[in-house]
Amino acid sequence: MRLSLLDWISVGLAGRDEPVAQIIRTMVCDEAGQGQASLFGDASRLPARAAALANGTISHALDYDDTHFAHIGHPSVVVLPAALAVAEAEKAEGPAFLNAALLGVEASIRIGLWLGRSHYQAGFHQTATAGAFGATVAAAKLMGLSTAQTETALNLVATRASGLKSQFGTMGKPYNAGIAASNGVECATLARLGMTAAQDGLATGQGFGPTHSGTLETALFDADGHWHFDRISHKFHACCHGTHAALDALITLVPQITGEIEKITITTHPRWLSVCNIKVPRTGLEVKFSYAHTAAMALSGLSTAALDSFSDKVAGDVALKSLASRVEVQATDTMAETAATVSVRTASGQFEASYDLADPQLPQALPARLKAKSAALLGQDTAADIWRGGEKGADPDQIGTLLRTS
Amino acid sequence: MRLSLLDWISVGLAGRDEPVAQIIRTMVCDEAGQGQASLFGDASRLPARAAALANGTISHALDYDDTHFAHIGHPSVVVLPAALAVAEAEKAEGPAFLNAALLGVEASIRIGLWLGRSHYQAGFHQTATAGAFGATVAAAKLMGLSTAQTETALNLVATRASGLKSQFGTMGKPYNAGIAASNGVECATLARLGMTAAQDGLATGQGFGPTHSGTLETALFDADGHWHFDRISHKFHACCHGTHAALDALITLVPQITGEIEKITITTHPRWLSVCNIKVPRTGLEVKFSYAHTAAMALSGLSTAALDSFSDKVAGDVALKSLASRVEVQATDTMAETAATVSVRTASGQFEASYDLADPQLPQALPARLKAKSAALLGQDTAADIWRGGEKGADPDQIGTLLRTS
Repeated sequence: MRLSLLDWISVGLAGRDEPVAQIIRTMVCDEAGQGQASLFGDASRLPARAAALANGTISHALDYDDTHFAHIGHPSVVVLPAALAVAEAEKAEGPAFLNAALLGVEASIRIGLWLGRSHYQAGFHQTATAGAFGATVAAAKLMGLSTAQTETALNLVATRASGLKSQFGTMGKPYNAGIAASNGVECATLARLGMTAAQDGLATGQGFGPTHSGTLETALFDADGHWHFDRISHKFHACCHGTHAALDALITLVPQITGEIEKITITTHPRWLSVCNIKVPRTGLEVKFSYAHTAAMALSGLSTAALDSFSDKVAGDVALKSLASRVEVQATDTMAETAATVSVRTASGQFEASYDLADPQLPQALPARLKAKSAALLGQDTAADIWRGGEKGADPDQIGTLLRTS
Repeated sequence: MRLSLLDWISVGLAGRDEPVAQIIRTMVCDEAGQGQASLFGDASRLPARAAALANGTISHALDYDDTHFAHIGHPSVVVLPAALAVAEAEKAEGPAFLNAALLGVEASIRIGLWLGRSHYQAGFHQTATAGAFGATVAAAKLMGLSTAQTETALNLVATRASGLKSQFGTMGKPYNAGIAASNGVECATLARLGMTAAQDGLATGQGFGPTHSGTLETALFDADGHWHFDRISHKFHACCHGTHAALDALITLVPQITGEIEKITITTHPRWLSVCNIKVPRTGLEVKFSYAHTAAMALSGLSTAALDSFSDKVAGDVALKSLASRVEVQATDTMAETAATVSVRTASGQFEASYDLADPQLPQALPARLKAKSAALLGQDTAADIWRGGEKGADPDQIGTLLRTS
């Protein structure tokens, strides 16, 4: 081992002025100790690459961020950390930052579609794998890279992108998002410094796609001219995804219901019955997996968006338990996994509603729903601060301040 | 995109005190601006994670480092950057540093054998993929992680390890070594901070092995009690690997040869004839791919270890060209790809030798050969400095100084 060490030192010193050596050293030396970008929950500013790693992980910690079902990925927790970190470092303005983020998210969805269901089924976490390419696009755009440099950055991240679904249920899941965000910042930075990469790191024989069980349908990447971004889906309930469609259907009914509730019938897809159908939950955590109890919460006006609604106290609440006991859950194969119908019978009559999470959310309703979710999570004041920041042009510097000081 | 941004900020702020958020933030904040570890060719000291990335890339830039043929990987350029960076950061002593590096290299070879030829053939660069696990072992050992923490670090790097052979011929190849080294430092650091990971990130259904075309022969990992490390192979010639066995055979002959050389016959495996058999090279680069010219250099006592021996001037040297014109190259299927025989006919007689790179290198001959290579690359003085460092117990701090100041 000692001889290998001496040989390694010799070879490393002999190669220290090679172009690739100068490039990688320039990146790490330039960023060292620089306060380029902000972190959630700490007053420090850090190198953009480190901030992207942290913010990707932190913002996916609750698994409460947006989803795109076309490729099954969480685009914002990967692309936004990369875009914000680079925007802060480059002192970009709000519109440029938002535009780069939009292109990055759209790219991640399309790369995800190109990789295809075979890639996801094999075990790859699209959030991280496809996400790394989206993060690279956003970072490259904000750095003002040329087309050739952007291609190099994407061909380079092909050897860096990673992330496995087998980490689900552990901290490895949010870490995957952070990995992808920092990979994007790193590869765009290296391309700007002149790093070279495979000419086609994605689709070539042993590129990222073929080596990672990709389906590689180019037509899906091209997306026949329409934007996939529009069908992005936000989470509005801090509980199991399987309950969301039923909760959304119930919430639309609440203003119409009159009379005492006698019975609530929820119809869902059979796959959810083994996932989130705990009849009498005993803890706050079990409430998250209970159609009956979450339905009672929604009908009683208790926020299913707030994290602290899912407490042991709420699980034991007598009035909620009484209402929950009137819930019946049934399943039918013909229902989409993303959909549910609810029927509420009262002394005054029958009230019915359906909801499908896969339907595009109504753009006019979204801002108010998202702001209400923000307030449920953080309080009215912080939510108002965040919204003011967004209205003032999404200035990266101002958003960075929010992250550090809220 | 603006709404997704506002939602992302809200969800990130709401998750900022989650355990995984605290862990990832602690890592990047703790390392920020710290001068923990040294780089080849720069006076700065940097965070260990960044130093590992840079030194892995820099030390593989010349592709002149050691190789292990059992799994086809370059172990030292991945494991040593991780081990040295962590050893400097942890102020470890020489023996602990060498021991951790040895365990890391052995682990990388065994993981590489477990991943198998199917993994390599599918397109994965074992240096980087298997290497990341070895770097993790070395880093974990130097951090003093418990067995459980080390398992977590390995299960975590399973979602981070990457590297494709399709980057060969570009800067992406040495970058792969740097990626693996920094992945090892990062995952060991996160495991120490309490990060969780999949219980079996490697062999489980959708672990690293099955998702990356692994053969997964556990018996090869177990290695029936013997160490693979011993068969590590060092490069001694700064030219195409195909010429090495013939050059080593010729160099053993040189002291015996008497009389004027009339004819040199080199017998090699047929696969090399299309790789490194340029009869009359016109440039220094072409000399690297010429049996005839490199043989003439070796027989004339010109170092084939020195990078600057491969110059256009050497290509045009009349005496070398004359000697090279007497070389005949022939191939036979029965020769191993790693072997060659040479026969030199002079007025005084016939001199013959064989060499196989796959044979374990004689331990007693290695130190002198490696020191001569170091001197050919860096000059006698620097080589002597490096060797003194190694003899003085491989002190990480002293080695770091060598990297920064040589």
